[in-house]
Amino acid sequence: MTAAAFEREQTVRFGHCDPAGIVFYPRYFEMLNELVEDWFAHGLGLPFAQLIVQRRIGMPTARLDTRFKRISRLGDRLCQRLYVERVGGSSLMLAIAFDGSDGTRVEFDQLLVCTSLDTHRPQPLPADLRVALETL
Amino acid sequence: MTAAAFEREQTVRFGHCDPAGIVFYPRYFEMLNELVEDWFAHGLGLPFAQLIVQRRIGMPTARLDTRFKRISRLGDRLCQRLYVERVGGSSLMLAIAFDGSDGTRVEFDQLLVCTSLDTHRPQPLPADLRVALETL
Amino acid sequence: MTAAAFEREQTVRFGHCDPAGIVFYPRYFEMLNELVEDWFAHGLGLPFAQLIVQRRIGMPTARLDTRFKRISRLGDRLCQRLYVERVGGSSLMLAIAFDGSDGTRVEFDQLLVCTSLDTHRPQPLPADLRVALETL
Amino acid sequence: MTAAAFEREQTVRFGHCDPAGIVFYPRYFEMLNELVEDWFAHGLGLPFAQLIVQRRIGMPTARLDTRFKRISRLGDRLCQRLYVERVGGSSLMLAIAFDGSDGTRVEFDQLLVCTSLDTHRPQPLPADLRVALETL
Repeated sequence: MTAAAFEREQTVRFGHCDPAGIVFYPRYFEMLNELVEDWFAHGLGLPFAQLIVQRRIGMPTARLDTRFKRISRLGDRLCQRLYVERVGGSSLMLAIAFDGSDGTRVEFDQLLVCTSLDTHRPQPLPADLRVALETL
Repeated sequence: MTAAAFEREQTVRFGHCDPAGIVFYPRYFEMLNELVEDWFAHGLGLPFAQLIVQRRIGMPTARLDTRFKRISRLGDRLCQRLYVERVGGSSLMLAIAFDGSDGTRVEFDQLLVCTSLDTHRPQPLPADLRVALETL
Repeated sequence: MTAAAFEREQTVRFGHCDPAGIVFYPRYFEMLNELVEDWFAHGLGLPFAQLIVQRRIGMPTARLDTRFKRISRLGDRLCQRLYVERVGGSSLMLAIAFDGSDGTRVEFDQLLVCTSLDTHRPQPLPADLRVALETL
Repeated sequence: MTAAAFEREQTVRFGHCDPAGIVFYPRYFEMLNELVEDWFAHGLGLPFAQLIVQRRIGMPTARLDTRFKRISRLGDRLCQRLYVERVGGSSLMLAIAFDGSDGTRVEFDQLLVCTSLDTHRPQPLPADLRVALETL
């Protein structure tokens, strides 16, 4: 059983919920992006403000497979865990779970690809990101 | 080559785009939900206000596999097409493509499950939805 | 009684609504931005993709006073009307109403300021925008 | 100089920012709602999950006047302070500021009205909320 590369907690907020009183699924993807953003900033030491704005290196999502297993309600605490499944030359494969008190709520397999924001074409992962990934 | 069960056009808006000037991927899922909502209202004759609010029948997403193939920019026109892949006892499998002028931008395989909003448990597709699906 | 400079209709969508079953107020501001975006594109002939991305001219909001008068529910049709109250050297004052079947739902007074996106400082309204405003 | 009734910090996230690289203003209202939500949960001891979902007491916004004074960029830290300006029979007037390192970025005057979520009509503030407000 591997340890998660990064985790954080997230409360389900009013703004996440729909008229059925449960999380509106596009909001899970906003949470997912925040988790990856926090991992880059606090886990890998590469805040998006530096990576994306200053260095114009993008990490867009190429594939994202999601399994919604249980509903989440307003006020629920979600434990969000991120695992690195594979580091490629210009890509990262992540496995992510959002868990509630009754088990896993949502699971994601997310493939991130490193791109130039000038050309939007793939490019090798930058050296400092690669080092940070190796020392997780 | 099957015809799409439903299609609509969507312009990429300012509010969809991120600091890299391209669609922020959680916004694609908001667009996807709007497409399905429009299909239910205008294609199947079952607006969510009736189905979800009055009849308390939910159609939450159980699986959603997404391939992001090309970027979309502010002002782009997306042709959104929805195909019904399979109608199960209490579920619907959809295949959806958002196409731009240069080809497919995003593809989704979405499994919707019919639930009771009182119990959040699966239940058979309602008869009028089944009839509407058969006469597509 | 002045005529509106621009109007459009908007259906209240599932994604706009909160667990109370009514529009979550931040979503009204997303609708407001879309209305102004459509006015620039279709009323004034200046799509944001040109103005903001290509010419790097911003139209950020400096003041926004909002009165929420009646609730809106999923499926409601909103008639959105935009009035130009005042054209200044580098600013535009707008009055906007979202009306439902029972009267006005929300009213906005919005002050837009023309800025350079390189310096984020105010600058005179561009000549083609001024011409378009004069020929409304 | 009164002390703030509640404060929290918020980082400007990738998902808050627009193609101009600055906060898209509807996202400020999402942040505002989260601040008020956190104040109710952690400052007043009345989480929305109890107040809104269980007790069906709403606190919708009736007026909201906003002054956008300086731009905020990706990665900026915002200090968010909330002041209670007036407690009425069925309403609360709040003054809120989001401050960055260079001064105030946004100021809000927000009027919240207590309503029944069954009738959507105003009703007196509940006794426990009134007590919590008096002992701030």
